[in-house]
Amino acid sequence: MSRVRPVKGLPWDIGAIGTARWGGARLRDVLLHAGFPAEREGEWHVCFEGLDTDAGGAPYGASIPYARALSAGAEVLLAYEMNGRELPRDHGFPVRVVVPGVVGARSVKWLRRVAVSAAESPSHWQQNDYKGFSPCVDWDSVDYTTAPAIQELPVQSAITQPRPGAAVPAGELTVKGYAWSGGGREVVRVDVSLDGGRSWRVARLTGERPPPGRAWAWRLWELRAPVAAGTELEIVCKAVDGSYNVQPDGVAAIWNLRGVLSNAWHRVRVTVTG
Amino acid sequence: MSRVRPVKGLPWDIGAIGTARWGGARLRDVLLHAGFPAEREGEWHVCFEGLDTDAGGAPYGASIPYARALSAGAEVLLAYEMNGRELPRDHGFPVRVVVPGVVGARSVKWLRRVAVSAAESPSHWQQNDYKGFSPCVDWDSVDYTTAPAIQELPVQSAITQPRPGAAVPAGELTVKGYAWSGGGREVVRVDVSLDGGRSWRVARLTGERPPPGRAWAWRLWELRAPVAAGTELEIVCKAVDGSYNVQPDGVAAIWNLRGVLSNAWHRVRVTVTG
Repeated sequence: MSRVRPVKGLPWDIGAIGTARWGGARLRDVLLHAGFPAEREGEWHVCFEGLDTDAGGAPYGASIPYARALSAGAEVLLAYEMNGRELPRDHGFPVRVVVPGVVGARSVKWLRRVAVSAAESPSHWQQNDYKGFSPCVDWDSVDYTTAPAIQELPVQSAITQPRPGAAVPAGELTVKGYAWSGGGREVVRVDVSLDGGRSWRVARLTGERPPPGRAWAWRLWELRAPVAAGTELEIVCKAVDGSYNVQPDGVAAIWNLRGVLSNAWHRVRVTVTG
Repeated sequence: MSRVRPVKGLPWDIGAIGTARWGGARLRDVLLHAGFPAEREGEWHVCFEGLDTDAGGAPYGASIPYARALSAGAEVLLAYEMNGRELPRDHGFPVRVVVPGVVGARSVKWLRRVAVSAAESPSHWQQNDYKGFSPCVDWDSVDYTTAPAIQELPVQSAITQPRPGAAVPAGELTVKGYAWSGGGREVVRVDVSLDGGRSWRVARLTGERPPPGRAWAWRLWELRAPVAAGTELEIVCKAVDGSYNVQPDGVAAIWNLRGVLSNAWHRVRVTVTG
């Protein structure tokens, strides 16, 4: 996104995603056990506070809507296991929140406090960060109260093989990548182009199909295609989710000052050698 | 979409949407009353059959997932009232289905039968129509079993004023339109461009904010901007929903043989007179 216009953010590129198997207590069960009702009229939130603090001493914090926290289907966890082992320190030991289908910023690590509140978390990261704005909004005009905190993320995909700038041999090229959508929406198709988006092929989705409405993990995909020596390829991918949401073609129209929600088609240029 | 490549479909343009106030019995209550459980393991569907038939005598039919039919939040209705009056004949008298947040094709009119089934409706319109495909799939290569039936629709928006080709007076131009997203996802922002998408402004959303997760109706929007005499404007709109899904920039990459899911940016060209 910074190639269109500089943003203030971290250069995650295609790396800000991962998939693990989490173990822990369901937040729903903990809250029901503590006497909170399964449904509640009006606006309520469940706020989390971490043990980590910023330079000024303020703890990291975030919140999710009460309905998600109490939903059996949303499967929000207070996790103490990762991939069958004790939660590692870097991943939030001893207990962290895992909110499937939602931006990672709400999955608070090193958890020290859970509170039910009529307001969202007052933390900087809930109120004044991790929100999306129009490309016409910049630091001199931004009003963070006008946009909702990011919860579910839009559909996205990335090419993980070949790497940008690679020289690939002529013959059969294998392109691989991941695709993911927020809110448990399943990835139903990935289109891949070898000519910058002029023509498309359908990639093969690999791995297990998720249960309906619970597509929390990424879906991996693969495409094999013949490529001729001496050509330059611009490989592009774009995914479609179960609500038939698609990715935007370009970055310019989704540019935002913090560089979040960067889900335009992913492009990788390679050279085919002889 | 047919301007990119002809599709076999109806030329709905921006008209295939409406908003009404529906009254009736909740499908959930009817099914619970009939002894069906609120939750059910495995794949189940609720199938609807209408009294209207095609040229070969087959009734119109469609289905929705069991979980949606039984969800209190999804508010699926067996409607017998529209805007406070008896359901009109053209809208499905005496009883029709209304599935909020879902493509209209599942809201079966002139309802004669509701059935719970392990399979989706066997009707043509569920099995071999109203599905999305890659632009590389055409009538000689389409396999309808490879794509899911459309249920929730992606985010979309349209300019309803001014009309395409209009001559508008110099001074303050008012642009109006609607925006909508599937699954009850709220429209959180509409961006409008007067220069074909090179620069953007944020439109004002009018009317009531919907309850969380139940944004079933369209959201209307409005933008006022000064325009100079003697110019040509290409007005463009694009909407963002609560999961930060956005519309695709162009039609070419979402082209599909049936012309469905046409949610690229909407464009209207006008001339500003002196």
